[in-house]
Formats: sequence, C-alpha cells, structure tokens
Amino acid sequence: MSVAEADRLEGKTCVVVGGGGFLGAQLTPKLVALGAKVRVFGRTRYFARPLYGAHWTSGTLDDVEKLVAVLSGADIVFHFAGASSPAGAEANRISDLSTNVGGSVALMDLCRHSGVGRIVFASSGGTIYGDAGLPPFSETTLPRPISTYGINKLGVEHYLRLYNHLYGMRNVSLRMANPFGPYQHGTKQQGAISVFTRLMLEDGVIRIWGDGTATRDYLYGGDAADAMIAAALYDGEAEVFNIGSGVGRTLNEVVASLETVLGVTARVEYLPKRAFDVAASILDCRLAETELGWRASCDWNAALALTCDWIRQDVAAERAGR
Amino acid sequence: MSVAEADRLEGKTCVVVGGGGFLGAQLTPKLVALGAKVRVFGRTRYFARPLYGAHWTSGTLDDVEKLVAVLSGADIVFHFAGASSPAGAEANRISDLSTNVGGSVALMDLCRHSGVGRIVFASSGGTIYGDAGLPPFSETTLPRPISTYGINKLGVEHYLRLYNHLYGMRNVSLRMANPFGPYQHGTKQQGAISVFTRLMLEDGVIRIWGDGTATRDYLYGGDAADAMIAAALYDGEAEVFNIGSGVGRTLNEVVASLETVLGVTARVEYLPKRAFDVAASILDCRLAETELGWRASCDWNAALALTCDWIRQDVAAERAGR
Repeated sequence: MSVAEADRLEGKTCVVVGGGGFLGAQLTPKLVALGAKVRVFGRTRYFARPLYGAHWTSGTLDDVEKLVAVLSGADIVFHFAGASSPAGAEANRISDLSTNVGGSVALMDLCRHSGVGRIVFASSGGTIYGDAGLPPFSETTLPRPISTYGINKLGVEHYLRLYNHLYGMRNVSLRMANPFGPYQHGTKQQGAISVFTRLMLEDGVIRIWGDGTATRDYLYGGDAADAMIAAALYDGEAEVFNIGSGVGRTLNEVVASLETVLGVTARVEYLPKRAFDVAASILDCRLAETELGWRASCDWNAALALTCDWIRQDVAAERAGR
Repeated sequence: MSVAEADRLEGKTCVVVGGGGFLGAQLTPKLVALGAKVRVFGRTRYFARPLYGAHWTSGTLDDVEKLVAVLSGADIVFHFAGASSPAGAEANRISDLSTNVGGSVALMDLCRHSGVGRIVFASSGGTIYGDAGLPPFSETTLPRPISTYGINKLGVEHYLRLYNHLYGMRNVSLRMANPFGPYQHGTKQQGAISVFTRLMLEDGVIRIWGDGTATRDYLYGGDAADAMIAAALYDGEAEVFNIGSGVGRTLNEVVASLETVLGVTARVEYLPKRAFDVAASILDCRLAETELGWRASCDWNAALALTCDWIRQDVAAERAGR
C-alpha cells in the first residue's frame, strides 16, 4: 500500500466497533494520522492515549440506538466486537453464538441501512483452520475448526460474504494470526506473548497446555493495523485474507525469545493439552501480499522488545497504584 | 449396505427428532422394519401411517424436559429439526440462527449427557456449496454458501464435528441434495417437484425464479432414508457425506418430465432470479459409495411416478374433505 493510497482515507468516516481494547488501540492512531474521522465504539475504553483524536461511545452490539447514531454517515466499519476468549466461548457455546454471530448479523443490518460500504472484520486465522491438516494454511484450505470460537468466527465470515452477495457490500474478513503487541494487557488469558511476559516480569509461573511444541503464527499489532487499513482501501474481489507472519513458532521458542529480551529465566509448568487447542497453525499470506500489497514487516525481536517495554510500564503503573 | 449390516439396528433405540414431516415419514418405516425401537419427536405429526410402530412425542427443541425423556437410553438420533425454507431463513436471519444452530447445539448437549453415541444430521448439499464454482461438488470443495439456510446448516455441521472431537461422539452429517417423494406435500414452497406436481394437478401456474436453467440434484426420499440408515451404521472416520443422485437436472427438465408422467401440460410463469438461489448444484457422491456402500438407486421416472401418485391421492383426499 503506497502513501498515496492510504491518503484515500482522508476525510472518510471510520467506525471502530469493539475498539476499546488492543486492536482498537493499534488501529485508531493510524486512522487518525491518515486524516480519517474516527469514531470508536466499545464496551470499555481501556486506553485513553491511543484513542486521542477519535470520538468515543461506550456500548455493546445490543445498544441499537447508540449504534445507529455512531454508524450514521459512516463509510467504513472495522468490526472487532464480541471477542471472547476461546476458553470462554467453549464454556458458553449458545450465548457465544448469539452474541458473536447474531450480534454481527445485527451489526451488518445496521451498517447496510446506514449506507456503510464495507465492514473489515477481525476474524481468526489461528482457530478457523483447526485440524485442517499440515500448515501453512491458505484461504483455499478447507476450514475444520475444532473450537466454538473458530466456528463462530467462520460463521460471521459467511454472513459477511452473504451481505456482499445480496446487498452489494464490500465486506472483507481478515483471518488474523495470533496478534500481540503494546496494549495487550496479558491479564485475561488472551495472547500468549503478553501473558508470558507479564508472568515473567512478576516472577509468576507460566502455564502451558501441552508440551510447548504447539506452533503458532504470531502477528505484531502494528502489522495487523496496517493490514486492516489496506483492507479498507482494497479495490479487488477477494473477500477473505490470511494475515500473519507466515512463520511458525512453538510456545517453547516464544518463552526462549522472551528470556533473551527480558534477561530473566522463565518458570514453566506444563499442563495436559486442551482438546480445543490446535496443534499447529501457520498462515500462508501470499494472497494479502499480491492483493492488498501487505506483508508483516516488523522484526520478531524488535516486536517482542516493544511489547515487553509496554507491559513493563503497565506493570509499573499498576504497582504505583495508577 | 448388506442386510446383515442393517440387522445391527435391531433392538437399538433410534430417536427421529423433527420427524413429523417428509423425512421422518421416509425413514421411520424402514427403522421399524429393521427391528429398531423408534421414537419420533416433532412439532406436528403430519402423517399417521408411516409412523406406525413408532412412539410419537410432540414438542420443539425448546422443550428440554420432553427431549430428555425421549433421549433417555437412546443409541442413535436422527436430527431433522428446525427446518425452515431458504426464503423463510433469509427473512429472519437471527431467529433462524438461534433456532437452528443454537437449538442444534442444545440438542447435542442433551444427546451427549444421555449417552447417545451418534447424531445423523440432515444437512443441505443443495445450499452449503453456494457459489463454490463449477459442480459437481465433493466434500472437499470449499463451501461458499450464499444463503442463511446454507450458512446455518454448515454451522451445525461444524458443531457436530466439534462434539466428535471434544466428546468422542460419532456424529455424521449428510449433505442431502434436493429430496423429493411421497409425504412431501408441495404446499409450503419446499421441494420443487412436489410443488410443481400439485400445481399441475390443480391446473395452477408454476412460478420459476429465473429462466428455469438452474440445475439441481434431486434425491428420492427412499434413497435418502437408506443413506441415513447406512450413516447410522457407519464404522469409519468420515464425518460429512454428500448424498445425492449425482445427476443435474434443470427446472425446465423437471417440468418436462412431470408433463410426461402426469400427461398434462404445465403452465409456467418465469419470475426474476432470487439472489440466494444457487445457479447449479450437483453432488459428487463417491465418498458415500465407498464409505457407506450407498448410492442413489431409484429410477428417475419411477420416483416421479410414485411422487405424483402420492400427491394425487393427497389432493383427492383434501377435496374429499379429509
């Protein structure tokens, strides 16, 4: 994506739904910097600074009146709402279905009636493919999700395609690998890198389900945000993109890298494997490169260092009774 | 499937959920004849005779107490519940999601806790593949549903696989082509052959969305029931099967065949194409042949004649004020 292309967001109204957390904090400053008018809608605003220059509204996908107001006159919607953790989704399948899939369909209807041209959806490359076979997985791989979280993300993707087909929307789903980076607290069992970093800084015990050889594709938050902007500006026909580093790393490798970056030794406890965790997930991201002109570019160790710095500050701020 | 294999259903308790309609009427007599103990559960019992020898309970997927009683001690569940028409699903997406996907997940939980080993699910080969490309479609074709009906059937399939993965169930989804045959009334916009036959017998106008060149794979109900029994007895690892004739016929060909069988000339009105109807659907059913030992065997003209006879009697009975 060239600078000239990104300029096409100038003056556009972008709504970041479910934007109060990690992904919203990564994306919003970039949208503001590109001259977009940004409205952020979410349950909780976890961060003030990254949302500077954007208009905040608090609410959930059930708050139809608020959503209608926020979506009024909007051009592009980024949809990150309804994220639950994989373990949480497994424990409450039917409510997860209703909240995430049903809530997303309701959002699509509101967007359609507001004249929103495109929804860019944060889907999950890490869970949709499931036990699809040997990675890397491409967008033409037959998805075989083995978790409620993955099934429901895939369901939302299908509805986004349906709305393209029936109503001429230009929705795009980004199957994101495991994202990490600043603004991921590491306190809610979401994001292995952040959780491990926080535990190592607090001298806690890292709990790994399985033997630590499970492979994941880790995506730096800044790269993820760049992919979302490229998707917002995309002119082609593709509707689904893998967004990842294309590199597989085991949990044990992640721990080793963090030991190097933080200069501390991790304490690790290995627990029995969970059935809904996939063994290996690596994304083939060539379609995003050819169609979106995007590829993950942040160096692994640099990305880890930035992440660790942020969590260190977060831990310090907490200790200071922020 | 040999006779010896089918004998393995003798004495087994089979529950046909959503069994009051067409598919239940096709399957139940065969299960009873094989010596199974059959319980049929559904909203409405449309037919008495085909359910002879089975125990009937009326209820919906919301009636948990009734379902628990019906599932108690059951070995195999056939799941046909929650069928809405594609047009109905499109008009009420969120309630269709909740009723069909949410209701199916609730049923899976009840089955699991009752010790049911297998659910055989009537999925939809005619809608799941959507605009997946050129047919025939095999089970490895990437599904691209373009209807709410297809998206939700696919969602149920994913949950059935999840329950196999997490809880050791042996659920099987049958992606059935467009089924037809006796006990399909043709009064509810479901089943082109029955609807057309009834209209032709009553000198009504057949309404076809599009130019009549849309291709479908038509599956005779008796063949569908045989596939369900084969799936109930299946010992292998596959979880999803296409079940169809493997032959594509246009709507115009169906009308021409019915004109021959009924000896009348059809009056046809062509309406604009509906966006959620797929252009062509033909199923590659070789997996069912190799794994289940099943293939569609009823001759097309014979099947049409049986269907027309039944609808003729149904129309006559109605006129006689049955």
